[in-house]
Amino acid sequence: MPARSAQPKLDQTLVALADPTRRAILQRLSRGEARVTELARPFPVSLNSISKHIRMLERAQLVKRRRAGREHILSFNPKPLDDAAAWIETHRALWAKRLDMLDALLREEDRIAEAAHTRSALEGEHHD
Amino acid sequence: MPARSAQPKLDQTLVALADPTRRAILQRLSRGEARVTELARPFPVSLNSISKHIRMLERAQLVKRRRAGREHILSFNPKPLDDAAAWIETHRALWAKRLDMLDALLREEDRIAEAAHTRSALEGEHHD
Repeated sequence: MPARSAQPKLDQTLVALADPTRRAILQRLSRGEARVTELARPFPVSLNSISKHIRMLERAQLVKRRRAGREHILSFNPKPLDDAAAWIETHRALWAKRLDMLDALLREEDRIAEAAHTRSALEGEHHD
Repeated sequence: MPARSAQPKLDQTLVALADPTRRAILQRLSRGEARVTELARPFPVSLNSISKHIRMLERAQLVKRRRAGREHILSFNPKPLDDAAAWIETHRALWAKRLDMLDALLREEDRIAEAAHTRSALEGEHHD
């Protein structure tokens, strides 16, 4: 029975990842920490817009913030990606397993059909 | 330079996955195809609500629909998961590589500090 309340965090991780600007921010931070202003510079959107994206990433715990004097330093936290990766890999694997089973089933059918064909051919020889 | 227009499909995949009911639908379908009514049965929500979730999964191409007479048969299409898995794995890997580099750097610093310590100890012996 599927539970609607399961994994609110995974929802948050996936929604946070579902935006190209937020993915680009994470991509930058996955190469090393950065100040907010430094992070915002290459983006063709307002600092305010970038700040909103950063807050969403912080709520999803994909980004951590620490203060160094007056500076806010942001870093990447890959931990929430574990659940997302696990979900995706499990379902790709389930599907692959199902395809393997179908494949085995078809091979088995082929084998039976071939055996029946060989037997009827042999029986044909005997009766001729 | 991060591009805002990149990968609209990945956005769609991630948003489609960011809901426990839609994930439960995919989980069911990853074990084999199902009719809409059969799929909806275990969920404590209306058939209309499930239909909306299914349409969203179809738009994200995670679910395929075919007709068999009057029945609609749904199946799982894991293909869009490839991009999502690739994005996640790349960024986990980038981060892991960065941690390895930091680790190597710290070891190198330790090695230098130790060598300096050994040298000063040896020099100490000579001068005593």
